[in-house]
Amino acid sequence: MSLKLDSVSTLLNEPDAAPVHSVTLFVALVSACIVIGHLLQKTRWMNQSVTALAFGLCTATVIILTTNGKISDILLFDEDLFFICLLPPIIFNAGFQVKKKQFFQNFIIINLFGVVGTLISFGIISIVQFAWCFAHTYKMLYVNAYRLFWWQVDLSSLGAILSATDTVCTLQVLNQEDTPLLYSLVFGEGVVNDATSIVLFNAIQKFSVHVTPDTVMQFTGSFLYLFSLSTLLGIAVGLMSAYIIRKLYFGRHSTDREVALMILMAYLSYVMADLFQLSGILTVFFCGIVMSHYTWHNITESSRVTTKHTFATLSFISETFIFLYVGMDALDMEKWKIVKGSPGTSVAVSSTLLGLVLVGRAASVFSVSFLSNLANDSPIDKIGFKQQVTIWWAGLMRGAVSVALAYNKFTSSGHTQRPKNAIMITSTITIVLFSNVVSDFAANPYNHRNSLSWLTSTKLYLLLIDENLQVFGLLTKPLVRLMLQPREESSEISSPKSSSALLPLLANGQDLASELDSVGGGISIRRPSSLTMLITKPTSTVHYYWRKFDNAVMRPIFGGGGEESPPNDILH
Amino acid sequence: MSLKLDSVSTLLNEPDAAPVHSVTLFVALVSACIVIGHLLQKTRWMNQSVTALAFGLCTATVIILTTNGKISDILLFDEDLFFICLLPPIIFNAGFQVKKKQFFQNFIIINLFGVVGTLISFGIISIVQFAWCFAHTYKMLYVNAYRLFWWQVDLSSLGAILSATDTVCTLQVLNQEDTPLLYSLVFGEGVVNDATSIVLFNAIQKFSVHVTPDTVMQFTGSFLYLFSLSTLLGIAVGLMSAYIIRKLYFGRHSTDREVALMILMAYLSYVMADLFQLSGILTVFFCGIVMSHYTWHNITESSRVTTKHTFATLSFISETFIFLYVGMDALDMEKWKIVKGSPGTSVAVSSTLLGLVLVGRAASVFSVSFLSNLANDSPIDKIGFKQQVTIWWAGLMRGAVSVALAYNKFTSSGHTQRPKNAIMITSTITIVLFSNVVSDFAANPYNHRNSLSWLTSTKLYLLLIDENLQVFGLLTKPLVRLMLQPREESSEISSPKSSSALLPLLANGQDLASELDSVGGGISIRRPSSLTMLITKPTSTVHYYWRKFDNAVMRPIFGGGGEESPPNDILH
Repeated sequence: MSLKLDSVSTLLNEPDAAPVHSVTLFVALVSACIVIGHLLQKTRWMNQSVTALAFGLCTATVIILTTNGKISDILLFDEDLFFICLLPPIIFNAGFQVKKKQFFQNFIIINLFGVVGTLISFGIISIVQFAWCFAHTYKMLYVNAYRLFWWQVDLSSLGAILSATDTVCTLQVLNQEDTPLLYSLVFGEGVVNDATSIVLFNAIQKFSVHVTPDTVMQFTGSFLYLFSLSTLLGIAVGLMSAYIIRKLYFGRHSTDREVALMILMAYLSYVMADLFQLSGILTVFFCGIVMSHYTWHNITESSRVTTKHTFATLSFISETFIFLYVGMDALDMEKWKIVKGSPGTSVAVSSTLLGLVLVGRAASVFSVSFLSNLANDSPIDKIGFKQQVTIWWAGLMRGAVSVALAYNKFTSSGHTQRPKNAIMITSTITIVLFSNVVSDFAANPYNHRNSLSWLTSTKLYLLLIDENLQVFGLLTKPLVRLMLQPREESSEISSPKSSSALLPLLANGQDLASELDSVGGGISIRRPSSLTMLITKPTSTVHYYWRKFDNAVMRPIFGGGGEESPPNDILH
Repeated sequence: MSLKLDSVSTLLNEPDAAPVHSVTLFVALVSACIVIGHLLQKTRWMNQSVTALAFGLCTATVIILTTNGKISDILLFDEDLFFICLLPPIIFNAGFQVKKKQFFQNFIIINLFGVVGTLISFGIISIVQFAWCFAHTYKMLYVNAYRLFWWQVDLSSLGAILSATDTVCTLQVLNQEDTPLLYSLVFGEGVVNDATSIVLFNAIQKFSVHVTPDTVMQFTGSFLYLFSLSTLLGIAVGLMSAYIIRKLYFGRHSTDREVALMILMAYLSYVMADLFQLSGILTVFFCGIVMSHYTWHNITESSRVTTKHTFATLSFISETFIFLYVGMDALDMEKWKIVKGSPGTSVAVSSTLLGLVLVGRAASVFSVSFLSNLANDSPIDKIGFKQQVTIWWAGLMRGAVSVALAYNKFTSSGHTQRPKNAIMITSTITIVLFSNVVSDFAANPYNHRNSLSWLTSTKLYLLLIDENLQVFGLLTKPLVRLMLQPREESSEISSPKSSSALLPLLANGQDLASELDSVGGGISIRRPSSLTMLITKPTSTVHYYWRKFDNAVMRPIFGGGGEESPPNDILH
């Protein structure tokens, strides 16, 4: 009898069963998503990501209905999987296939959006949140400084998460070929954002109520440190891969070795950045840029085709998987059970936060655009109002990256994870401490019962906002089409392939971009009639000297061909 | 104060730090292995796998020396990682790139080796082990039936693990281009082996001392069930991928979708087999064969290049990783501490088991060859003595698959994992039960102190044997060269590319293989002078009808070109 009991308990605790179940489910679902996404391609409103989201929701519903809400473990979002496996290929591929010309052309504006814009958005969201909560708890005048501190940390963390643009979503909605300037602005902002959010989070941990010049200096210093070190690491690993492959000439023996080394070194740059607590997203993005500029030209022809498609495929699978995952995660029963008691509050909070995101984003985009326009004298470089609206709208989406960030930050920031550790190690003191902190939250709008509810409810709100913001994704494509309609039709007949003609609104930035074949270092200048612009623009001077340096010093060492964005030119 | 304590404890328990550390280490080491393996390519004795093994050993030594044996957690072998991530790409790629002609030509002999050979080897190892242990414990005449039962289960499990040929090692040492017959025999045997070992393990769980005709029937039935279902699943998923890609014509829109779908469906076949408790190795192998025969011909040109190299690269990375892993695992301190007390016993046991593996393999190879030679009348089909010796030797290696199997089987068979579960759920009863079982082992040659030692020591013995058997890997290449020397030199001058000329010993099987362009269904028959053989060989008749069926029914539905082994023909 005891034997039988034992074997049953062994079966229940079997470690292998669970992963195989969920792996099979996910692989089957991703395959189905790809097939259905392909079939729905003609439909304008359903892209791959929306299909995957819908698929995830349906699957979660089926699982919950068939198991009576028992096996909802599969639906739990695992941030390790996300940050270690799914995110790197997407960002690397974006760097590998990005139009380097456009990206570096707009480098200053991208940084303005990524740093100043994020800070403005963060400030607005945090301050309004804080004021609102304070107004609702005005009766708690006895709130001491210590409690206020923890409260601020959580609200600010939420503000920081909500001010970060999602790079993955941008890739899904904006098309690099159709809207290169918008793409590079919004996507680039998302990449720079990552560094800003890390610095912001570190700063929040040492939060003090009074913002002194010292804090600002410290913040600026740590941002510059993080940004430059992450970028340098990415460039260093990329150059190393180019040098090794060029010197050892792998293709002589085996194509597979070249491809393997490129994949491994790209991934190495990401995990190294993570290890050194830098921004992995920034690092792997720059590693991708360097690899496409140097390494890619040192490998054999078949390796080029392979790497180009392999990176794109891995990125494609990861994206589909993420959206499926977020869709499934939305129906995690635990979260819904907690809000069930107070549906009014949750709707109020999520709609307020949604409004804050809209306002914060608007404030940051319009003010940064204003600053940028002030700095530029020539009317050709100014960002028009319609462009600003498009940037504002396209950057509103918060997707899987936001959810993963929330999960990750709220459990490793040491605050909300505390009850877990507290119970296990230093029991009584920390529990008393924690219950004090929680009692504050019990009085604020997020009024839930148990001490862990703050963490769970935060996740839920983020998720709710996330789902709402997906609507922006659905609406962005039509918006871009609508906003940039007038001249599109007239030009589409004459030259449907010309991206600059497709986007008359952005023609100023566009034309410039195609005229100055700068960063890629190509020799061909497509419109020599506008060569005079080379002198009027200051960034182009930098580009000119960079090209000289690239040809004289870099290429003899690290290799590299003459094309601007080589991965886009082959086999298509 | 409590705050500080808390943040320290959070840091110590941080879940992210450990994976990132070990991931970075492994990615860096695999990259280094590839570079060094490339540099050492000219050396005959060092191939990629030996380099990786040596590298793993060195790294483990450095880690142990620098940390005083504390962070040996990184060195622990994780069988989930192995079976879910590393093994599938290797086996799939082997199926995808295998010479289908040779493989199906020798299908009967491969099955004989894989099933009968494994059973003979298993029988010899188990019986000798059992007799030896029994002789050493003859004083324990009071051994009751129950204790005997558990003892037999463990010894038999060890026997089954030690009779399985390692597919990964075979791929490393034998070259498909140079020795196609040997390769298909030994590798095919390894694939079929997997099904045999699963059936054997399931049978061992219901072990009874008396082998009745009933048990034999049951065993045969479950083997046939497992073998046919695994094969059918692989073929079904492969055909499904061919049909979907052919019908939907993905290449029209995106190459990446085709590649993604192929990768995902190949992996799906493996995890589905695992889920249904079939042989994943067998399934993914046949899925690879079907995909290379049908699916591969339905995709665009760039997708063909990409899939071919991507599968090879993934397999290459996994192989390097596995050997690195095994090398690092060898220095896991825990294991060594346990044997430290009894170095004599461990040497005796491991050398005895090593001898048993040699004898068991010899018995199985020579007897199966004898049976095969008896059945064949024509002297042309007989397996020569030198060939037998080569097969015996090449199949001796036990590598990562054996280690992973041991870890997996000994912890999921419900017996040795029991103390873990026991302590946690049904404490007292099972502990008493277990200590009774263990007391038997305390009296046998494996005399260690604590109750968990049997599991750990078993792993260690397997590892010791594994390391010893790696020597076979080092010696196999020279052996093959030595055994097949005489005519090789003379023919190498005239036609270095002809594989049949390179292997005069195997010329009988070889010539036949190139004459009958059967399974691949190619139209070109290279040696029409021997067309008469088509009638004399029974397997060739099957092949002939298969080809007719393939052309008439299968290809119109699932697609497929004319070449025999397409992935080998392109871009090389």
